[in-house]
Amino acid sequence: MELTQHTDYGLRVLMYAASNPGRRVTLKEVAAAYSISMEHLRKVVHRLARHGLLVTAKGRSGGFMVSQPAGEIRVGDVVRLLEGSLEIVDCERQPCPLRGACALKRALQQARHAFMEELDKVTLADLVSEGDTVDRLLKLNARP
Amino acid sequence: MELTQHTDYGLRVLMYAASNPGRRVTLKEVAAAYSISMEHLRKVVHRLARHGLLVTAKGRSGGFMVSQPAGEIRVGDVVRLLEGSLEIVDCERQPCPLRGACALKRALQQARHAFMEELDKVTLADLVSEGDTVDRLLKLNARP
Repeated sequence: MELTQHTDYGLRVLMYAASNPGRRVTLKEVAAAYSISMEHLRKVVHRLARHGLLVTAKGRSGGFMVSQPAGEIRVGDVVRLLEGSLEIVDCERQPCPLRGACALKRALQQARHAFMEELDKVTLADLVSEGDTVDRLLKLNARP
Repeated sequence: MELTQHTDYGLRVLMYAASNPGRRVTLKEVAAAYSISMEHLRKVVHRLARHGLLVTAKGRSGGFMVSQPAGEIRVGDVVRLLEGSLEIVDCERQPCPLRGACALKRALQQARHAFMEELDKVTLADLVSEGDTVDRLLKLNARP
């Protein structure tokens, strides 16, 4: 029950950007910090920008930053935006004869709801303000 | 954030078996009911048996049935048994420099906990006793 790599990287990018308030960060430095390919990250950043979570600027002093106060970005909303689908099982796989009338599906939806409700309680600001995480993020930023 | 196909099929198999109390069902009929290949299902049934959720019998009147009252089998436990991992993100992917000190990881674990807690409230008996699901399962069983 993993989130997609895309969502995972999207959250890492947001955490990096949010730990650099007031400064544009570059694709290059984020890629170096997380050892993720620029190509991969470019798509993630593009998507985050398209959804209005990042503002980007081109040119020499270009880069991107979080578009709004990190305390207003709910982790649950980021997951909703980045995950292609929130389905827990694929009822169209061999199409299941129970689909449309399935107590399992309903139980899984209930569980997913509880999952997302937890993530809605957490903001991006929470993610970058906890002691040990802050330390790590600062170390990343301090890299040459 | 999908469950694996293995878990999905495992739950479908259990629902089928539990809707046939007191009777051994065969791999062949379950495969036909769900249009899933026997080969695929064989592995799933083997795993469910190994974990003590199904009892199997070989021979002419062989097949398998649920090992205990369906009301005692929690959906959460089935998911724990069948999913290889319950991790929501893979921190070892490009190994993430935040791992071991990551507020995101903790938030996701919290959310997963809420997810599993919901599934622990539901038993296999619940899944096969809801009106519309029962109807569908009975129709599957009635197939030649």
